[in-house]
Amino acid sequence: MTKRLNAFVASANSSETQFPLNNLPYGVFLQGDLKRCGVAIGDFVLDVAALEKQGLIDLGQPLLQSAAWNPVMDAGSDIWGQLRARLITLLSDGSADQNAVEAALYPLTDVQLLMPFTVSEFTDFYAGKHHATNVGTMFRGAENALPPNWLHIPIGYNGRASSVVVSGTDIHRPSGQLKGPDDALPRFAPSKRFDIELEMGAIVGRPSSDRVSVDQADDMIFGYVILNDWSARDIQAWEYQPLGPFQSKATATTISPWIVTKAALEPFRCETPTRDFELLAHLKDTGPMLYGIDLGVTIAPKGSDATEVIRTNYKEMYYSAAQQLAHHTSSGCPMRVGDLLGSGTISGATKDSRGSFLELSWGGKEPFTLDSGETRSFIEDYDTLTLQGFAKGSDFKIGFGDCTGTILPAK
Amino acid sequence: MTKRLNAFVASANSSETQFPLNNLPYGVFLQGDLKRCGVAIGDFVLDVAALEKQGLIDLGQPLLQSAAWNPVMDAGSDIWGQLRARLITLLSDGSADQNAVEAALYPLTDVQLLMPFTVSEFTDFYAGKHHATNVGTMFRGAENALPPNWLHIPIGYNGRASSVVVSGTDIHRPSGQLKGPDDALPRFAPSKRFDIELEMGAIVGRPSSDRVSVDQADDMIFGYVILNDWSARDIQAWEYQPLGPFQSKATATTISPWIVTKAALEPFRCETPTRDFELLAHLKDTGPMLYGIDLGVTIAPKGSDATEVIRTNYKEMYYSAAQQLAHHTSSGCPMRVGDLLGSGTISGATKDSRGSFLELSWGGKEPFTLDSGETRSFIEDYDTLTLQGFAKGSDFKIGFGDCTGTILPAK
Repeated sequence: MTKRLNAFVASANSSETQFPLNNLPYGVFLQGDLKRCGVAIGDFVLDVAALEKQGLIDLGQPLLQSAAWNPVMDAGSDIWGQLRARLITLLSDGSADQNAVEAALYPLTDVQLLMPFTVSEFTDFYAGKHHATNVGTMFRGAENALPPNWLHIPIGYNGRASSVVVSGTDIHRPSGQLKGPDDALPRFAPSKRFDIELEMGAIVGRPSSDRVSVDQADDMIFGYVILNDWSARDIQAWEYQPLGPFQSKATATTISPWIVTKAALEPFRCETPTRDFELLAHLKDTGPMLYGIDLGVTIAPKGSDATEVIRTNYKEMYYSAAQQLAHHTSSGCPMRVGDLLGSGTISGATKDSRGSFLELSWGGKEPFTLDSGETRSFIEDYDTLTLQGFAKGSDFKIGFGDCTGTILPAK
Repeated sequence: MTKRLNAFVASANSSETQFPLNNLPYGVFLQGDLKRCGVAIGDFVLDVAALEKQGLIDLGQPLLQSAAWNPVMDAGSDIWGQLRARLITLLSDGSADQNAVEAALYPLTDVQLLMPFTVSEFTDFYAGKHHATNVGTMFRGAENALPPNWLHIPIGYNGRASSVVVSGTDIHRPSGQLKGPDDALPRFAPSKRFDIELEMGAIVGRPSSDRVSVDQADDMIFGYVILNDWSARDIQAWEYQPLGPFQSKATATTISPWIVTKAALEPFRCETPTRDFELLAHLKDTGPMLYGIDLGVTIAPKGSDATEVIRTNYKEMYYSAAQQLAHHTSSGCPMRVGDLLGSGTISGATKDSRGSFLELSWGGKEPFTLDSGETRSFIEDYDTLTLQGFAKGSDFKIGFGDCTGTILPAK
């Protein structure tokens, strides 16, 4: 089992930190007026743009001077490996450059975290079997829960890149066209069934112009974020036939501030589940391509403490991000650096592992109770929702930072 | 009725040209090694990047030096008006700068046309009533042809910006997962039902961060292109439930090389049709926001002449681009400069005005015959499909250039 690496930054050596030297996640931070690329280490963010300017990081060309990690992605996987190796050297216990590196550390509590990369396009999948079964059972009955195609392809739809925001961004409750089953005509009103979807996001770091294999797809992935695909269930119910969700998913999608690289997650790879049908050749598993990542969601009403309402794990997915990406290219669809692929809602088999309020309250029929005594079926105004994820080693854990958002009233 | 404006370029004064002085559409051309912004006039393209460098066009800042029209869009509608006015002055009969302008003209036959703008995101709608009725009748029967939401909202789905290509780009027949109704299991194979969709595309030229009205949406639109949303009907049939089309629409979407500005189309505005239901306030018509544009599609098998198989008009749409854009923002979805909105397939009431082969051959049951004697239900390898559109004045017409593509065999 992989062990914790020792950093000269004391807070990075605690078993409690989500940013040990093994992690080194990539973000963008605002310090003063400057937006800069940074790497989280213990309680600090390392100003890697400054270290590059000083020559302590040299990637052959300046790649860390913009307020996004896309240039690093674009430079290719050799550079990904070089940068990670150099960061480990710089931050390790006994680093020859400790003084210079220390001068480029800012306490995380002093900086604001911004979008870590420019999202080219956003695709969202529907690739968790428990989630699809739960939703299908609610809408079509247990006998027809999974659509006929579901066990053969990772069902996905294109989302809206312009609506992806970083953790901490307040979200206004959306309005939209709604029509209940007993209403004669639709009306335009604030959503009453606003929801979360607990997901992981995979970031495409290498482009493709043609169909790619599952192995090639895995190589193209730069890293992962936690992702909350805010969803207005009542807008969705009225709009989604026949061409899928549109405005119900376009208000916002929140991602964690830190991109955890594929390299950091390597020790946590795990297999996808046993298949009901053998997958066709272009989608077949070629190795462990999911990751064991514990996921949780808390909800904090205004003025109340947070209650954890969901606990699940990324390994509950039926399809890996590599399989999703391979499918995404199957028609020849070009992929670009910065494309973001949402896994789909990650639900487990038990009630408390359901990754959305729609499932947790079973369509609103079974409200759940918070520690404060309040109940919820869907999100109320001023609720703060926080998603977290941790891959756990023997004596360390790898985190993504909070993926959080507070819901404000409809405008 | 608006009359033709006289240019000093003789070929622009013919009633046959699609590029009279009234048009002045925007494109990007390759001449030698240089990619430059250009404006079509008669048989020529005007190198406006060169004129800007010479100071003959001055927009306050350099806006014509990149290989895309996005900087002009981003500069706002005052600049859009200034540029058009200046171009009319420079190119008019009696222009004070005729010699300098003539030196910047290249024969259209000598240049290659490239993508005229950078597509930020691509959304495709389903807003033609005849098309939706035809497709619905085929799939669900005449009684349930239009989905219940169809008459209340312009149904749309997010497409894939990375797959938008300029006219003239060859398209490889896609492969994908297919399963016929009698097949036990799906297989991966080339699409046998590859099709066109005859559409107009509206280009968003101003951003928005919140809900906009139909009037505000109309102000945000920079111009229009002809658009062919290539569609693999067999891939679509298997994948599209429950979340809509995905890989069936991701191979390619071809646009015309010229953006015709809203200003050029102004004389051709017309009303949307009578409503079956009154639209809700945020979508209500506030003036004539469709355009009378004659549209046609030809197909030329390899070695044969082209046969015109479709003739229709943009005014057949049920929803205008402004209404589609207003709906697009209804949940708070941010819009960006360079967003492209496909109208949806434009079909008329008669058989020869159906805007896709799916409708024209009624799902393949009624193959149609070309001038060469060959028949078609869907596209065959090496067929060249060409879409054209013309807004027609008393003694001039406004065109978009050919929107064409040849289908090559599956890779």
